[in-house]
Amino acid sequence: MTTNTFDFIGGDKGQWKVISINTVCGLPIETVQYLDILPHLTNTGNKGVWTLTGFTSNVRYAEKDEREKLIAVQSDLGRPLATYAALIPIRKTESWWTMAQDERRKIFEAKSHHTETGLKYLPAIARRLYHCRDIGQPFDFLTWFEYAPEDSVKFEELVKSLRETEEWKYVDREMDIRLIKS
Amino acid sequence: MTTNTFDFIGGDKGQWKVISINTVCGLPIETVQYLDILPHLTNTGNKGVWTLTGFTSNVRYAEKDEREKLIAVQSDLGRPLATYAALIPIRKTESWWTMAQDERRKIFEAKSHHTETGLKYLPAIARRLYHCRDIGQPFDFLTWFEYAPEDSVKFEELVKSLRETEEWKYVDREMDIRLIKS
Repeated sequence: MTTNTFDFIGGDKGQWKVISINTVCGLPIETVQYLDILPHLTNTGNKGVWTLTGFTSNVRYAEKDEREKLIAVQSDLGRPLATYAALIPIRKTESWWTMAQDERRKIFEAKSHHTETGLKYLPAIARRLYHCRDIGQPFDFLTWFEYAPEDSVKFEELVKSLRETEEWKYVDREMDIRLIKS
Repeated sequence: MTTNTFDFIGGDKGQWKVISINTVCGLPIETVQYLDILPHLTNTGNKGVWTLTGFTSNVRYAEKDEREKLIAVQSDLGRPLATYAALIPIRKTESWWTMAQDERRKIFEAKSHHTETGLKYLPAIARRLYHCRDIGQPFDFLTWFEYAPEDSVKFEELVKSLRETEEWKYVDREMDIRLIKS
């Protein structure tokens, strides 16, 4: 059975303590004290105040060279030193989704340098992308980042760079939830 | 809530009468007499002998020009004249899914002419693609086709052309279920 689908449960317990919840754009979500992450299949009732569900999938934009560079340098999740985390759920506009693959790729990389920018901050920032648009969720993606406290400045740079891109003009709902390992 | 996710229920009732179930490659599925298609959310218990679930999504390979050509010429599902249908569930190999986007695109279109071939048979053959790899299903895609009895020869040509492509070397499980409106 699938193990690629995970629940991100905001509530009163969990592995991650919530430091801040910032609404970057669009509707806010309810404030919670903790975040728990569980495989969707084994989660039989822990719903918390809210649950966001997403699945990992194959790469959608990265080309062969980019993918090889990413694999060579990226870090795994769960490093003991990475006690800081961020959950940034994002929704993109309908105009993004109705574009063809080459139009989206052009904005994603040629104009916004999404992969190239991300590479600059590896291996310090470990990240994973969860998809959720196709399963009736309020966001299209749950982006997850883990890093050591001393890499906080790098992380802020990464987030700032991405938010200034043309790609981000197509983001119409974004939350920024910062966490510390509890 | 989402209305992009559908259950394809093989059992003893449904809008479509099963004419044949052919295992093209990989494991077979159990024989059934009828197929019912219901929105996943409103299906509260009809599981039949088997249920395959899939969701419609954004285009993954088609480029702007191809997409415009497709939109200009494609037919809607549910035409009264289209009393024949085919459900062809497909699974692709791990080696397909671990390729980068440009590698998959190259095989999909430059080498296999998937969209170009499909266009030749529009508007006679109406089709819709449902994705299911990401939600723990036994297949990666449910491909659905509707056509008039007089277009049966065209449909056989289309299916034969696609099965001879390089893309199809990455298909390791395929069923071919033929149906007639009941």
